[in-house]
Amino acid sequence: MKIAVPLALAVAMSTVSVPSFAQFQKPEDAVKYRKAALTVMGNHFSRIGAMANGRVPFDAKVAAENAAIVETMSKLPWAGFAAGTDKGDTAALPAIWTEQARFNDGANKLQAAATQLSAAAKTGNLDAVKTAFGATAQTCKACHDAFRK
Amino acid sequence: MKIAVPLALAVAMSTVSVPSFAQFQKPEDAVKYRKAALTVMGNHFSRIGAMANGRVPFDAKVAAENAAIVETMSKLPWAGFAAGTDKGDTAALPAIWTEQARFNDGANKLQAAATQLSAAAKTGNLDAVKTAFGATAQTCKACHDAFRK
Repeated sequence: MKIAVPLALAVAMSTVSVPSFAQFQKPEDAVKYRKAALTVMGNHFSRIGAMANGRVPFDAKVAAENAAIVETMSKLPWAGFAAGTDKGDTAALPAIWTEQARFNDGANKLQAAATQLSAAAKTGNLDAVKTAFGATAQTCKACHDAFRK
Repeated sequence: MKIAVPLALAVAMSTVSVPSFAQFQKPEDAVKYRKAALTVMGNHFSRIGAMANGRVPFDAKVAAENAAIVETMSKLPWAGFAAGTDKGDTAALPAIWTEQARFNDGANKLQAAATQLSAAAKTGNLDAVKTAFGATAQTCKACHDAFRK
């Protein structure tokens, strides 16, 4: 009956179709979700980095597969930063909520860079992947420096 | 300099292109990754469940978006169940590694069901989504019952 947990969660979900917080039953669920999405994104991003940095032989197909996952994941974490999710097991800084326009701008820059990375990876050109990887890494760093403990 | 962490991870990665374990520096990284992928998948699956169960108004576009994410995520966790990743903060049962063919069969069934769920969601037909959601939930339950503490 372990499937009862997600089903029960689904049943317990709000009927209000507000975009973000309604997706989560409790603030901790939002924190867990955003960390999970960032973990998956970071893992696949690192696989591209290993190729961009020459530590793993470049495989265009593998790079494109990983970049597609990064692109998909780049859209996800932000819903988990809803108001009221600044507590608990999180490295998120209060600036995320006090400087929302700046935070959203950073999130948008990552998504744009991830889209370009995925396009670059589809070309099969390692130099293009290296350039796009570096540009994407800069968007990660910018937000981590500003908004992460 | 927080971006140095993923970059360092990438640099430290093995040059051997073995499919699964080489993706992770340490067994705990594999455990963290697979749990993260399952968390993201479960979250988006629950959003479809809320519509399938009538707790949230059916929105075909939202259902299709979530089902596409579930389909993508359904392919990911399995690399994280590499040999030697049975310890630590995990609910994974030893049967995953002693009955690998059965575990892989369950993983394949989920992926097939998730693909059908995504196709069903694209039709915009709620009954088709309900049927495909139920079938997918059964594949979750089958593996959780057999392979999760």
